[in-house]
Amino acid sequence: MKTPIVLAYSGGLDTSVILKWLINKDYEVYAFVADVGQEEDFISVKKKALAIGAKEVVVIDCKEEFVTDYIYPSLQTGALYENRYLLGTSLARPLIAKKLIEYAKDKNITHVSHGATGKGNDQIRFELVFMQFMPNVKIIAPWKITEFLETFKGRTDLLNFASNNGIPVSSTLQKPYSIDENLMHTSYEAGILEDPMLIPTEDMYRRTVSPYLAPDKIFELSIEFKHGVPILISEKNSGKLISGSNLEIFNYLNDIAGANAIGRIDIVESRFVGMKSRGIYETPAGTLLQKAYQDLETLVLDREVILMRSIAAPKLGQLIYNGMWFSPELQMLFAANSSIIKQLNGTINLGLYKGNITILGRSSPNSLYDSDIASMDKLGDYDQTDAIGFIKLTALRLKKQGL
Amino acid sequence: MKTPIVLAYSGGLDTSVILKWLINKDYEVYAFVADVGQEEDFISVKKKALAIGAKEVVVIDCKEEFVTDYIYPSLQTGALYENRYLLGTSLARPLIAKKLIEYAKDKNITHVSHGATGKGNDQIRFELVFMQFMPNVKIIAPWKITEFLETFKGRTDLLNFASNNGIPVSSTLQKPYSIDENLMHTSYEAGILEDPMLIPTEDMYRRTVSPYLAPDKIFELSIEFKHGVPILISEKNSGKLISGSNLEIFNYLNDIAGANAIGRIDIVESRFVGMKSRGIYETPAGTLLQKAYQDLETLVLDREVILMRSIAAPKLGQLIYNGMWFSPELQMLFAANSSIIKQLNGTINLGLYKGNITILGRSSPNSLYDSDIASMDKLGDYDQTDAIGFIKLTALRLKKQGL
Amino acid sequence: MKTPIVLAYSGGLDTSVILKWLINKDYEVYAFVADVGQEEDFISVKKKALAIGAKEVVVIDCKEEFVTDYIYPSLQTGALYENRYLLGTSLARPLIAKKLIEYAKDKNITHVSHGATGKGNDQIRFELVFMQFMPNVKIIAPWKITEFLETFKGRTDLLNFASNNGIPVSSTLQKPYSIDENLMHTSYEAGILEDPMLIPTEDMYRRTVSPYLAPDKIFELSIEFKHGVPILISEKNSGKLISGSNLEIFNYLNDIAGANAIGRIDIVESRFVGMKSRGIYETPAGTLLQKAYQDLETLVLDREVILMRSIAAPKLGQLIYNGMWFSPELQMLFAANSSIIKQLNGTINLGLYKGNITILGRSSPNSLYDSDIASMDKLGDYDQTDAIGFIKLTALRLKKQGL
Amino acid sequence: MKTPIVLAYSGGLDTSVILKWLINKDYEVYAFVADVGQEEDFISVKKKALAIGAKEVVVIDCKEEFVTDYIYPSLQTGALYENRYLLGTSLARPLIAKKLIEYAKDKNITHVSHGATGKGNDQIRFELVFMQFMPNVKIIAPWKITEFLETFKGRTDLLNFASNNGIPVSSTLQKPYSIDENLMHTSYEAGILEDPMLIPTEDMYRRTVSPYLAPDKIFELSIEFKHGVPILISEKNSGKLISGSNLEIFNYLNDIAGANAIGRIDIVESRFVGMKSRGIYETPAGTLLQKAYQDLETLVLDREVILMRSIAAPKLGQLIYNGMWFSPELQMLFAANSSIIKQLNGTINLGLYKGNITILGRSSPNSLYDSDIASMDKLGDYDQTDAIGFIKLTALRLKKQGL
Repeated sequence: MKTPIVLAYSGGLDTSVILKWLINKDYEVYAFVADVGQEEDFISVKKKALAIGAKEVVVIDCKEEFVTDYIYPSLQTGALYENRYLLGTSLARPLIAKKLIEYAKDKNITHVSHGATGKGNDQIRFELVFMQFMPNVKIIAPWKITEFLETFKGRTDLLNFASNNGIPVSSTLQKPYSIDENLMHTSYEAGILEDPMLIPTEDMYRRTVSPYLAPDKIFELSIEFKHGVPILISEKNSGKLISGSNLEIFNYLNDIAGANAIGRIDIVESRFVGMKSRGIYETPAGTLLQKAYQDLETLVLDREVILMRSIAAPKLGQLIYNGMWFSPELQMLFAANSSIIKQLNGTINLGLYKGNITILGRSSPNSLYDSDIASMDKLGDYDQTDAIGFIKLTALRLKKQGL
Repeated sequence: MKTPIVLAYSGGLDTSVILKWLINKDYEVYAFVADVGQEEDFISVKKKALAIGAKEVVVIDCKEEFVTDYIYPSLQTGALYENRYLLGTSLARPLIAKKLIEYAKDKNITHVSHGATGKGNDQIRFELVFMQFMPNVKIIAPWKITEFLETFKGRTDLLNFASNNGIPVSSTLQKPYSIDENLMHTSYEAGILEDPMLIPTEDMYRRTVSPYLAPDKIFELSIEFKHGVPILISEKNSGKLISGSNLEIFNYLNDIAGANAIGRIDIVESRFVGMKSRGIYETPAGTLLQKAYQDLETLVLDREVILMRSIAAPKLGQLIYNGMWFSPELQMLFAANSSIIKQLNGTINLGLYKGNITILGRSSPNSLYDSDIASMDKLGDYDQTDAIGFIKLTALRLKKQGL
Repeated sequence: MKTPIVLAYSGGLDTSVILKWLINKDYEVYAFVADVGQEEDFISVKKKALAIGAKEVVVIDCKEEFVTDYIYPSLQTGALYENRYLLGTSLARPLIAKKLIEYAKDKNITHVSHGATGKGNDQIRFELVFMQFMPNVKIIAPWKITEFLETFKGRTDLLNFASNNGIPVSSTLQKPYSIDENLMHTSYEAGILEDPMLIPTEDMYRRTVSPYLAPDKIFELSIEFKHGVPILISEKNSGKLISGSNLEIFNYLNDIAGANAIGRIDIVESRFVGMKSRGIYETPAGTLLQKAYQDLETLVLDREVILMRSIAAPKLGQLIYNGMWFSPELQMLFAANSSIIKQLNGTINLGLYKGNITILGRSSPNSLYDSDIASMDKLGDYDQTDAIGFIKLTALRLKKQGL
Repeated sequence: MKTPIVLAYSGGLDTSVILKWLINKDYEVYAFVADVGQEEDFISVKKKALAIGAKEVVVIDCKEEFVTDYIYPSLQTGALYENRYLLGTSLARPLIAKKLIEYAKDKNITHVSHGATGKGNDQIRFELVFMQFMPNVKIIAPWKITEFLETFKGRTDLLNFASNNGIPVSSTLQKPYSIDENLMHTSYEAGILEDPMLIPTEDMYRRTVSPYLAPDKIFELSIEFKHGVPILISEKNSGKLISGSNLEIFNYLNDIAGANAIGRIDIVESRFVGMKSRGIYETPAGTLLQKAYQDLETLVLDREVILMRSIAAPKLGQLIYNGMWFSPELQMLFAANSSIIKQLNGTINLGLYKGNITILGRSSPNSLYDSDIASMDKLGDYDQTDAIGFIKLTALRLKKQGL
């Protein structure tokens, strides 16, 4: 009697080898593939898994849910890891893990497996969700099993195993770094990128053109938000309007942002397991929307709310990065943020030009900007002499500091 | 017997009118001019003040102190107001006010005056420092005195008064917005900019070229930091090395950043007196250094220190913006940050291109990046099986959440 | 044609004088009295206001709403001002102000008045709510009107005016300090208490007995919470059960806590207007419940949620103290807290003895305490060897610190 | 050739068994005993270790350092774990671990051992410091070694092993719970206390009398602080003055606080390894000083500094509890706090009575309390009409919230 196990399968070399290795270990493997927007031929992936010996392969389309329930909620909070990283991989992992467990529960399977290594963040993001949604889950993580580690000491061992077991190897494996991709971003790390001084060549990038190669012409668009969600885009020059599902709009934004060189970063970051690593990320639509959200938020939100959100954002970033998506503390921060989402309505005009995002005007039915009061030329409902008392009482405690 | 008073004098229309108005009110006016790097002909300013009737004019060069004790300490903390504004004006005001009070104390003068309006932030930044450094100060702020407000209801009244009193009016007064300038930034607000949808024409900008007009060629440089201060710049192509005083290096960075279209933002912001306003800022060197600091910090600082600093940065931004530079709470945050400045050593390579700042490698003697441990190919001093226990105990509390 | 005005009326000397003074100023005064649980003969208060010349007097019973929508939400967050003060007055003021504005709107009245001084916090708590709920409100605050201040320079002037105008003066006016009272607390400040070294005599206290005089016998009770609200009390010795409305239960707790000397503090505090002041507070039920909430929360809430709440609590305390009850930032913090209230179920056993509150056991259907895992004698679902990896990876970043 | 190893030795059953077990495993054991104020006969402990077979025994007196560099710095920040726990054990562990590593380095020993279990916090507090101060350390933690765990499945196995190996067993082992003791506190946990409903009998407590048994008479004393450190105590009735070393003063405070029933808590807490546990603590001097510090701080510190410290305190508590004493983030928080310690001067008068600590007046040369400004009867340097402008501008943003 074989033990059934669900494997988070990508179609790549590692998880294909693991699939075979699990079969060799007498598991009955259910290959689970999540479509989170990676560029992939899922039909080939299915065939490959079955050819290797999977009992069943399933591809779950998570794209709409990914945009709606993971990407947008994160962007709405301003979450950012170490001041720069928009968390593309971190957002996809909990969704994949949750869907995998739902599938496992459906099949009454309690063993799960994945191909994340013991040095990275993804093992945590997967396993925390596995354990949270299925406390009795049994996790087989080959990259943390001594026997597996001793068998596969490097890429060559994997390639030999693949070759010996008839597992086809794709061309991206030639690349001297590893790639992760979903709707939010494409990431590059490891291999030659482990030298933080090394600058990759232009041909590495898959989602964005270089600023040098982007059109020498500004691309102007307006993004209309309703309750925190972009619902309508208009291109200024063409007059074209883009609406549709959250996924359709997000895809459109990815395209135009990528074409205008928006969203590349090259950073050193701090992994949850304790070391620093180096990653390069392309997040075209995410970066564009981040700027638009920022501008909308300062227009419609009270300054003390902005401050609280800004203070919470780095913590949100860390929690999401560390795989804590379903943690009670993150849910608490989301609950705080939910109180302001209904105000996030309005239109932000933007210009895209060779990597630059320029704000070209903003308006909102919820705008707190009142030109009469703001004006240096008009009084509005404002008595300048009030400022005397305001400052005097504000100064009272400072005068006691004795400088 | 006339009452002596120190006036924060800029040479512009408002403070020139105020100078005369104070004289008419029987004050003996000491005009105090702070050179914080604004483009200004201080000899003309002096002549103008004396011509109007100032008893004395003094121009204090605060530039080196401004860079060393205000701009760098702020950048070292990551302080940012409402996630975008690098606080150029906010940083200069407390320095000017402190110097003015030192001058007043020297002269045994207890009355001071300034030309900031009752609607803006600068009145607060001036007056809080005045009162903190001289608790018994008497502040004459004409823009909050009913009689003055009734006399000068608009620009026309000021111009007429100037004309009637022989006060020369400079050409910048034609500009349909107001400008503030110092080493850190040039700001534009009020007038036509009070419409948050209005996009100013290119000729407004004084410090940066537009991305469209910037060179179509990357400019590469390295910035070497020692104890948190940039001490040496090297241009990659020319091989040129730039060292010198903090002011000289900052001026150099302003030039090359401005020439490459770095540092423009157009924002709505929340004033301390309660309303939203709209401002446009050019902060060339500040923006460039901010990116370099960020990259250096993630390389040399522990992740939990990075998180704490990120959480503190918005509060620092608000305190600086609100004029609280010398407040005990800001001093407490600076004390916290002082514990990490000695680690801020290293070199950041950057590329500037049409508004983009690209990180092109980083290194540091204090680097926490350890390629052996980070590597996906090498083990380093890391046992992947340790991650099993790490994740299991991390998950323990999450498993109790019952999803 | 007289201007109608609503006066927040207490029946005391100040507001009685103000009532008359407003009438003398040709206002038509609607006296508004909020019953928030102060010990008061409201029939006499009504008669007094009418005798002085009020056009109308209304007494609004706010007690149940005060407990349910102000006291409990505050206690559920752990809000505390400057680590010690449970915010009794701060909680009542926004409720009173909101009710007063509702009454004014009903009557189409836009002028309101109150008797709070220009040095205290209550003026802010009243006026912020007035202005927030009725942006066009006209506030007549006599203690900030120069003429009034010059007329009434001290208590003697008030007493003379009262005597000359037939306003009866109650005996509590003899007291050499001022008192504020509501369901949550009784506060004492000003007068002789302005010396922070002065210790008041025992006869000042109205709500609690002294520890020295309290029964020399422990009083044991259990409080059962449901969704964050105490719904059932049982006395251990008598077996008596107390249920009923929130108000009834809160009143009961006030009685037994006061009888056992629970809830006195004597503090120096920082007023929002800038100075330090000294206050003495009796908060019997609030103090008792605070301890019970703390114990329940650590039993049922995740540690990271506890930490976030602990970090938010001082800010909540400051916001409530400063009159920001209806501010968007406080609403945001309440929204965060709302995510955990459904878990606050369980029973806390307590012993009260001469000022001490001792926890005597706790239980909850939502308890996160798992004796099998906690046990040093049993393994539970816990593998001690997991701790090796947990600590090694936790130490990884620390080892880089080079001590 | 035996491997030398330093064992953190207490003289108790567990570490005595471990000592023997290590010898059996061919280690040469150096027994390290830290005197942090536990009630212990160190001569007997030494003899016992040598009798069991230790190569060397050393007892290091850490008491003065414990008070000065661990207890006071923690109390000065207001650090508190989960709002109630004053961190007695958490403070002692890093000191013991640091001293042990110093001793190991002296002896050129790289192996260390301890008797903390794999379920508790102390293993973390020990091992993080071991690894931080000696990155190449080899840690032998028998309670996380499968063979040891299988040999010693319960107390009986330990007792049998002791008996078979001639290890004397002390009477405290009869106690149905475990005890940890140092200058700061005595803690009780495990065994019968694992039932959170169980109330221990009075004879468990070693440091404090019960409130019921404490003197029925108030004990009044004054504590004078200089730069954050209590330097002089005066007893009111006797007139006795107590000065001396930090240790002498702390010991005195422990005695009088314990005699007056100060400092017991019974809590459920969240361990760093993930589960909730239950602990009972007696912290007499610490609790007394905490109250005195609070009162002093609100007298001499600015309100915004108080707020920042209150926000930091729970994080400090968590970091200390989790064994992060030497972490860079905790050092950063201490650096922040260091900016205020010089202001912590003054005298707090206190009354102790049957578990109650009552503030009976306070004074300080750094007091920010100004009775003239605070006074409701005097104006001081305060113009009540200033409050009008203060509140109007404070309300400006709130009026935009549209309630």
